[in-house]
Amino acid sequence: MCQLLGMNANTPTDVMFSFTGLATRADEHKDGFGIAFFEDKGVRLFVDPESARASPVAELVRRYPIKSGNVIAHIRKATQGQVALQNTHPFVRELWGRYWVFAHNGDLKGFNPRLHASFRPVGDTDSERAFCWLMQELAKAHAAVPSIDELTRTLAELLPLPAAHGTFNCLLSNGQALWAHCSTQLHWLQRAHPFGAARLADEDLSVDFGALTTPGDRVALVATQPLTAGEDWVAFGTGELRVFVDGQPR
Amino acid sequence: MCQLLGMNANTPTDVMFSFTGLATRADEHKDGFGIAFFEDKGVRLFVDPESARASPVAELVRRYPIKSGNVIAHIRKATQGQVALQNTHPFVRELWGRYWVFAHNGDLKGFNPRLHASFRPVGDTDSERAFCWLMQELAKAHAAVPSIDELTRTLAELLPLPAAHGTFNCLLSNGQALWAHCSTQLHWLQRAHPFGAARLADEDLSVDFGALTTPGDRVALVATQPLTAGEDWVAFGTGELRVFVDGQPR
Repeated sequence: MCQLLGMNANTPTDVMFSFTGLATRADEHKDGFGIAFFEDKGVRLFVDPESARASPVAELVRRYPIKSGNVIAHIRKATQGQVALQNTHPFVRELWGRYWVFAHNGDLKGFNPRLHASFRPVGDTDSERAFCWLMQELAKAHAAVPSIDELTRTLAELLPLPAAHGTFNCLLSNGQALWAHCSTQLHWLQRAHPFGAARLADEDLSVDFGALTTPGDRVALVATQPLTAGEDWVAFGTGELRVFVDGQPR
Repeated sequence: MCQLLGMNANTPTDVMFSFTGLATRADEHKDGFGIAFFEDKGVRLFVDPESARASPVAELVRRYPIKSGNVIAHIRKATQGQVALQNTHPFVRELWGRYWVFAHNGDLKGFNPRLHASFRPVGDTDSERAFCWLMQELAKAHAAVPSIDELTRTLAELLPLPAAHGTFNCLLSNGQALWAHCSTQLHWLQRAHPFGAARLADEDLSVDFGALTTPGDRVALVATQPLTAGEDWVAFGTGELRVFVDGQPR
């Protein structure tokens, strides 16, 4: 299984602490990693088919405080598709003049929808195929970027279709919101005033968010497994879709 | 004016030396930089709205030997569009299950073609608008990835249209070939056996390619201005389109 990390915040925030927590799990997830940061409508995507433990690109991400309102990260243990750059999550496409970023944890069997429109997979993963299909169906359902609530309703109709073919934990963002769908395993957490300290579950590293934030800051995190000890991570239910806007669930 | 750098090679090659040469010109081109590397069908895109002199991302690119067969880099001096991540070249889109990378040097006035298909600009530059139009017209002209020669013929018909609106020096690659179109200023160079030494035109740095290559290696470089002294850079003519495959002009 791969590991997912998503972040949605009302103030551009860096994810160095959480990404360090994710990267410590890279020993068993050595088939590449990727992380996408939205800054306004633009997106920075760092991908590497090397392990997040060894990659100089991951080293940069751990040390360079890129501040973003929406982040999606993924560390990969290949199930379908060879270890190659084109199979490394997250994937990015443009729709309605907005970039869309997608990462998937799980395995779909026999999900081969007809892709007749403008979104085709470049690599050969089940994940990118499902993403292209989602983009195609969103493009059919709306003529231009709809409201977040409308998008959420459309996604709630679409996501069960691939999910019926296997495990489909996934994260999607267009820079305005973060959507998270759980099929087997996903957790979320909100950090808000008064901020406390947190300790990474897998590594001897702590951070005092109180010293780094202002009272109005709000951050929502989504991860396959809770990344920290001593914080109230909430498990998603099977089939649950949540959308996070400005650092809080909607 | 911005500065362009393109590389096409028959063996995956790093561009640390040439990128260092490009980055030294970043003092007057401080409005961001970007570089895209193809590895097989996958692409790594590093973009930063900071100057290539100051950016930690540029520092990574100068030090981490990413080996690629097709590279497009750009350092920006903003003429249209604010300094923002979404306005930073190169731009990437997917068509026919292939990524396409585009960077532009110049300035187009009043090029506002109808964009009725699946490619919309995310930022607000003339460059991304021209790229979306090119992708739209390529998608109309061919049903799937055509041969390189067919693509070159289609591009030769399309490129004069935006070029009629101003300065349109640009680079395009899908990982199989590098297309370069000159409107006012572009140079190219081939390095092949026997490899010699080269010295950066702007900085006191030399490299002996003979020590780093094998006799079968071939590399073609395209740049706004010759990057090295003592090598035979060839100036493009006005309106000239060239395509490079496996490290040589076709």
